[in-house]
Amino acid sequence: MSELDERPLVALTLGDVAGIGPEVVALAWSLPALHALARPFVVGDSAVLRRALDLQNKGPSIEVETIDAPEAARPSLKVIPCLEVAGVDVAGVRPGLVDARAGGAAARWLVEGIDLALAGRIDAIVTLPLHKESLHLAGIPHPGHTEILAERCGVHEHAMMLYLPPDDAGPGGLGVIHATLHVALRQVFDLLTLDSVAAKIHLADSAIRPLTDGRQPRIAVAGLNPHAGENGLFGDEEIRIIAPAVARCRLEGVNVVGPIAADTLFGRALGGEFDAVLAMYHDQGHVALKTIGFDRAVNVTLGLPIVRTSVAHGTAFDIAWQGRDVDTSSLIAAVRVAARIVAGNVRIKRC
Amino acid sequence: MSELDERPLVALTLGDVAGIGPEVVALAWSLPALHALARPFVVGDSAVLRRALDLQNKGPSIEVETIDAPEAARPSLKVIPCLEVAGVDVAGVRPGLVDARAGGAAARWLVEGIDLALAGRIDAIVTLPLHKESLHLAGIPHPGHTEILAERCGVHEHAMMLYLPPDDAGPGGLGVIHATLHVALRQVFDLLTLDSVAAKIHLADSAIRPLTDGRQPRIAVAGLNPHAGENGLFGDEEIRIIAPAVARCRLEGVNVVGPIAADTLFGRALGGEFDAVLAMYHDQGHVALKTIGFDRAVNVTLGLPIVRTSVAHGTAFDIAWQGRDVDTSSLIAAVRVAARIVAGNVRIKRC
Repeated sequence: MSELDERPLVALTLGDVAGIGPEVVALAWSLPALHALARPFVVGDSAVLRRALDLQNKGPSIEVETIDAPEAARPSLKVIPCLEVAGVDVAGVRPGLVDARAGGAAARWLVEGIDLALAGRIDAIVTLPLHKESLHLAGIPHPGHTEILAERCGVHEHAMMLYLPPDDAGPGGLGVIHATLHVALRQVFDLLTLDSVAAKIHLADSAIRPLTDGRQPRIAVAGLNPHAGENGLFGDEEIRIIAPAVARCRLEGVNVVGPIAADTLFGRALGGEFDAVLAMYHDQGHVALKTIGFDRAVNVTLGLPIVRTSVAHGTAFDIAWQGRDVDTSSLIAAVRVAARIVAGNVRIKRC
Repeated sequence: MSELDERPLVALTLGDVAGIGPEVVALAWSLPALHALARPFVVGDSAVLRRALDLQNKGPSIEVETIDAPEAARPSLKVIPCLEVAGVDVAGVRPGLVDARAGGAAARWLVEGIDLALAGRIDAIVTLPLHKESLHLAGIPHPGHTEILAERCGVHEHAMMLYLPPDDAGPGGLGVIHATLHVALRQVFDLLTLDSVAAKIHLADSAIRPLTDGRQPRIAVAGLNPHAGENGLFGDEEIRIIAPAVARCRLEGVNVVGPIAADTLFGRALGGEFDAVLAMYHDQGHVALKTIGFDRAVNVTLGLPIVRTSVAHGTAFDIAWQGRDVDTSSLIAAVRVAARIVAGNVRIKRC
């Protein structure tokens, strides 16, 4: 990395080339916000990027420069550095269709990004969307990015934070961590224990810490039941599990309150009262942030030894490669949040 | 009612006088929006209203006129007609404190409003908040407004729609009906059956119909599990219960789709794609509407023989009677929505 440029070096893994990822990169590249906090480069396919630039009428003003090492990346508003991976061929992939070649390529580029980050050669990775079925057809035994990341990084415990940046969530931004995630709602009750909730409160505290500019994070915990159980009237998990977990974490030094009724909590948090919310299950947190933030919420994977964020949208096969005005805000937010986490981690290490 | 004025006559039941209700009325009264669609009057206490007007510096410009029948109400920007109920005395109630006299009075005024509506002497009632503990201290065996309404109206099946008016929810407004409501999340699974979900879809269709200006309502049903179960990967209620209920209702002529993942559904609905959403449980719908609409969502009670809406906020004892700039938007929205439902019902009956 350049000694003169302190912006972190961030790899954008291109994801499924049959989807909107390449066009999102093509349209985002000329926006200064993408470059303000980071030096981005793509791990993917130069020819695909050139096609996306041409389709989006960016061909004349932006060129793709194939590089053979991340250290060679010299990104600018006019140059997309693209690191290719030997043996990956997506020339025959057709727009909007499930294709094993696209799935296999997306996985290869992702693994390349992970390995570069693990080796300390880049600062963070930001992933464009991949398609589950294409991944499956390619013989990849994982359902998505996160599982591949966990295996390659050798971690078992990981979690996801949905983060709405300051622009969309008041002055401080808002992170939402989930006590349970991709499980049937019926399974949630067995997974919530005093220990598991307390562990997630600590995770929320450490996850949001790089993003609070040195302040101690203010954490709020949502109730599980309507009105946070209304003193046991609508369920007792708040009394048996959540309140004791909050009390324990306060004794352990975390600035945390709760349980608070979920329907009023998110409005308060977005108003600036809290930096992060621990939601009890997937939809509780996702409904709040996705309803208010549409696709501007950024996924941050927690528990990895590397920094990884992800765009919040999918491959959108139905609108891909039609030259549409695809939304770049999620990619830009994901790159900016990754860069802020990297900078925050550096600051925390110095303290 | 005046033959010359087609605006519906709407009773505002004053609720708990120790709370912010009287001040909300005092501040809202001089706003033309309160009067544009309805002729409002208060069922409550004239002296309390005068104190609230004085506290909010509205005493010089607005007078309270005690009336002995709703037909005598001549509301204007300068006159609050107030119907009192014999034998109710709240003179000794102190601001911000639980008091049996306030709870008893709130219940008496509510019952008076219900009886006038049942008798066809008024068109709708809009309720200001009451306080559960004061109600309980007064010996009222019901936890809130809705249960009193149900008993007095002699209905067993009732439900609640949370409605975000057009100003806040795009051109058409958005109604959210809940398949289950004030129960522990654990109980939701037993309450969701093909029949119960289908019945709620029909309820959503009929509840939103007065508010769609004659168009057939477009209804969407949320999934129960993350990603609406992702084809059975995270729970099978979508496959066993929700999808068959949607299919049945479509055959029965309802314009309904689903199940749709809740985290993307509300954003789509707010963008104008649907008029109403059927949420599977309390927080799913409430988190979406209250996060986006704060206190501007209006509660509409369904299943009653009368039209009743309610402000979305509570008594706010902590800020009551301090002369603060209390938010009037929820009351104005509740009055406007009640008036629109009355007008919509008239139109539907004419068809």
